[in-house]
Amino acid sequence: MQDVAREAAVSTATVSRVLAGFKGATSDDTAERVREVAARLGYVVNSVAASLRKERSSSVGLILADVANPFFGALASGVESTLTQQGFGVLLASSGNDADEERRLLRLMAEKQVDAVIMASSAAGGEHINEAIARGMRIVLVDSELRDVDADTVVVDNQSAAQMAIEHLLEQGHRDIAIITGQLQASFDRERLAGYQQALNAQGLKPLKRLTLCGDSTFEGGHAAVTTLLRKRAKVTAVFATNNLMSMGAITALLEAGLSIPDDISLIGFDDLEWYPIFKPAISAIAQPAYQLGQVAAQRLLQRFAADNVLATERVVLPTQLILRASTAPPLYHR
Amino acid sequence: MQDVAREAAVSTATVSRVLAGFKGATSDDTAERVREVAARLGYVVNSVAASLRKERSSSVGLILADVANPFFGALASGVESTLTQQGFGVLLASSGNDADEERRLLRLMAEKQVDAVIMASSAAGGEHINEAIARGMRIVLVDSELRDVDADTVVVDNQSAAQMAIEHLLEQGHRDIAIITGQLQASFDRERLAGYQQALNAQGLKPLKRLTLCGDSTFEGGHAAVTTLLRKRAKVTAVFATNNLMSMGAITALLEAGLSIPDDISLIGFDDLEWYPIFKPAISAIAQPAYQLGQVAAQRLLQRFAADNVLATERVVLPTQLILRASTAPPLYHR
Repeated sequence: MQDVAREAAVSTATVSRVLAGFKGATSDDTAERVREVAARLGYVVNSVAASLRKERSSSVGLILADVANPFFGALASGVESTLTQQGFGVLLASSGNDADEERRLLRLMAEKQVDAVIMASSAAGGEHINEAIARGMRIVLVDSELRDVDADTVVVDNQSAAQMAIEHLLEQGHRDIAIITGQLQASFDRERLAGYQQALNAQGLKPLKRLTLCGDSTFEGGHAAVTTLLRKRAKVTAVFATNNLMSMGAITALLEAGLSIPDDISLIGFDDLEWYPIFKPAISAIAQPAYQLGQVAAQRLLQRFAADNVLATERVVLPTQLILRASTAPPLYHR
Repeated sequence: MQDVAREAAVSTATVSRVLAGFKGATSDDTAERVREVAARLGYVVNSVAASLRKERSSSVGLILADVANPFFGALASGVESTLTQQGFGVLLASSGNDADEERRLLRLMAEKQVDAVIMASSAAGGEHINEAIARGMRIVLVDSELRDVDADTVVVDNQSAAQMAIEHLLEQGHRDIAIITGQLQASFDRERLAGYQQALNAQGLKPLKRLTLCGDSTFEGGHAAVTTLLRKRAKVTAVFATNNLMSMGAITALLEAGLSIPDDISLIGFDDLEWYPIFKPAISAIAQPAYQLGQVAAQRLLQRFAADNVLATERVVLPTQLILRASTAPPLYHR
């Protein structure tokens, strides 16, 4: 505490009051500085972990769609390493993209008396989450946000990211761009579609139903979506696959059909994967900070524990990056 | 219980005694049949989960090297889905391949009062695990076994799998085969090296120090190992990389150096990855049943809970498969 006080140039009493969450203990700027220094020095967190260790279970639930998906694996790793270092246990549960299962798992977490739940929800609405909050559960949403839930939220700007990807394809001369979506329940999924539509609309192009395909967020779904496109002989020169599994399914289906990427069809994925740079062609993708999403969600929870839950809810947006590689090129008739 | 008794053709009393772990309740064959039927019908498991839910925390710890590694992601998924379905919580923790961290995490799990720990240990010796067992912790080892620990163990036959891969390379005419290992602490790592050595010895070939490289179980390590090989202009026509991250690093380094796989150097990986079949060249690998390793370890724990811990420890070996694709071919001077 003395280190924090020194670094933030305040008294230890101020540090104590700010971190206990008293409003009006000092100016907003100073309070912010104290929290920042405390977080950086890891002070808050340790004292909280110690105090919490005495009561309750000192465990945090983590509910996500599927830990075997590399995106969620990295996110789980960010949550786990941040919380385990502070003496918390992380209770892992996978919903399989099923909102009913999420509800069941939230109840399981309550039974296990976790202190909070970090949740990458696949649901369209947050009724089940609000019920949990009403029962006293602390929730941090990550990856997906729910407009009807007032909770800390750590996300990326999915709509802008998707829009940026489609704008790039449009600049290359593509006009017939297909999108492969999930089941359009979770916010990230709907936002990625909205970004696609917005980019097309901005160019006076109409998003077409026959180029909007559901890939169920799975490898098989991405594969089937591309197969359908090809069977229907749809006019299409580029594909945007909105998660890593569907991208892999789409790539596989294109190659199986004997098509060349990007000569016949360009492709951009959402989620960058470790093998994309060494693939032939190297795959263009929107990179998401999966580990950091988990880490920041966990840090936010630690702040909330430190402040005894009196903080206003916060929405943190982490940056994405469009990484252009060899899988995107102007359509042949444009070169 | 009646369903189990009917299917196993025994009385319900026999089912009850067998599942409670009484030795001599019936013949070994019959007992085995009852356990098999019970496991298949999910009977044991449900009754146990219900009884355990009444007491203690009903959570199980899962300690592994790194949940962001796709192998461990799939293993964690197998553990989590099996146990969560039965009402258990799964407390996840990553050791980062560090035996000291494993010791700390075992203590954390004890503090959290888990009922048992499933552990993919990276350690060379099991002292810390034996201490946990002595304090009353139930342990199931998965992926890695420890000779000095008497606990249920679910593994693959790493030595035979590695031997099979090297035998294939030898049959293709390779004589200068490099191996990239981890730090040779964990059993799986040492066994894969032993399989390599055994296959060479069987052909009267001497395993060479300069072709045995440590890749630290990481992407960077695999990359550095290949770079070292190439810089030293070692005579080498094939590389065996003993985990998925090192394989990816090795492939990347070979391609960066402008070499052709398999024309310049053949490659076999350990752990099959989803993108190996669509890579150019498609990558040959030893496939491990990662999800099943987790699932079987979790099922074994459920059996043990059901039998009130009186079962003898068991060693389950799951099959691997050598999947030959385009990354392995006879060396050029042999074609």
